[in-house]
Amino acid sequence: MEITSKTNQKVKQWVRYHQKKYRDEDQKFLIEGEHLIEEAIKHAAIECIMVRKGVKHAFSSYPCYVCSDDVMDKLSMSVSKADIMACVSYLKAPMKWGNRLVLLDQVQDPGNVGTIIRTACSFGFDGVILSDQAVDLYNEKLIRSTQGALFHIPVWRQSLLEALEICHNHQIPVYATSLHKAVTLSDMKRVSSCALIFGNEGSGVSPELLAKSDQNIIIEMTAFESLNVAVAAGICMYHFRKD
Amino acid sequence: MEITSKTNQKVKQWVRYHQKKYRDEDQKFLIEGEHLIEEAIKHAAIECIMVRKGVKHAFSSYPCYVCSDDVMDKLSMSVSKADIMACVSYLKAPMKWGNRLVLLDQVQDPGNVGTIIRTACSFGFDGVILSDQAVDLYNEKLIRSTQGALFHIPVWRQSLLEALEICHNHQIPVYATSLHKAVTLSDMKRVSSCALIFGNEGSGVSPELLAKSDQNIIIEMTAFESLNVAVAAGICMYHFRKD
Repeated sequence: MEITSKTNQKVKQWVRYHQKKYRDEDQKFLIEGEHLIEEAIKHAAIECIMVRKGVKHAFSSYPCYVCSDDVMDKLSMSVSKADIMACVSYLKAPMKWGNRLVLLDQVQDPGNVGTIIRTACSFGFDGVILSDQAVDLYNEKLIRSTQGALFHIPVWRQSLLEALEICHNHQIPVYATSLHKAVTLSDMKRVSSCALIFGNEGSGVSPELLAKSDQNIIIEMTAFESLNVAVAAGICMYHFRKD
Repeated sequence: MEITSKTNQKVKQWVRYHQKKYRDEDQKFLIEGEHLIEEAIKHAAIECIMVRKGVKHAFSSYPCYVCSDDVMDKLSMSVSKADIMACVSYLKAPMKWGNRLVLLDQVQDPGNVGTIIRTACSFGFDGVILSDQAVDLYNEKLIRSTQGALFHIPVWRQSLLEALEICHNHQIPVYATSLHKAVTLSDMKRVSSCALIFGNEGSGVSPELLAKSDQNIIIEMTAFESLNVAVAAGICMYHFRKD
């Protein structure tokens, strides 16, 4: 099917997915670029592919719309306009609770959250839980930062107090990063199950979650004492990685 | 001094510093926000402060321009327009060679480079060297991502082949991250001096640098096998941190 008009009904519908409220309404989102589509194919439901006219691709088993340059440029959210995109259904929450979890308390930057999801996937974590106030999972920059990991590891939104309770019921120890009353990371025994809480970029993990965690962890630093949350999370996840 | 016109000569001059070529010409750059200015004061030469009319500040020992809203909005490069900015002289390369160094080979994303500088500072590294093709050090997003660490640790641009030679002359072992012929990070002995090379987001460390490094390192991963370069660098720098 070919689309050459920016006012085509399909185009209008897809462009609405640049905004969270319309994504939530239809439970669908857009992804850009061959790499993300390849990753999505493995674990997500792709509704259709949109491709720039003249561009070859290997996704012929999906409904495909060949789009003119101005249509693609309108659909794409990235600065370097995409040649291929897909419309994908929202991901489902997992059926079973994992052993290695990452809990993100009001982490706001989409790049940070996407990077943490990517790292969690690489170190064999079973899931990433976003608190109610954390950034939207289907934010374009977040998806891009995951490099496709989003389609390999369950990520969902849940009250973290509720999540902590489930962890406690499953005898999963909960560790929060904090500068106070904390054990240094290198003194922490590597364990086969744990839930790690990382906090907001400015204010850290909130006091009510710190109060319910089993242990506070501090990453030993020499000077300056300031780490980006995705870096701090990466260092902790490496320590508690699955062998 | 009060400035109310966007066509004021000073304003025109500062706005030029949004572009690299004019920064390089005058060897000056702009920073935004109270926190960065506080950090800059300790180690950099501040030429003047620009403050939004009505906003109080504690930098009264510097020449200060009180600017109208439209002037400040024009000067500021961030989405959430700054209330206070400063014009700062380019940083100087350090006088002596350090023991713990980070070498960035064509790392392109300003957020990644800024985050790596921030991490290097926190783990007691002595300097960060950018390869000729790496992103501009005075890029606004890079500076913001350092959270001020830029003013606490020497960062400079140099041919990395030249830097490697100096490291070898100083008997500093050079480690590069690579997926091939590599020793796992946790098997690496913690040493009191080292130079760590991290590569471009897409292509990694270039072959000519890998050929001249003393050892390749790989970060053990469980699955997916993909890490953001700032996260990978963070994990390695934590391992080789200064006690």
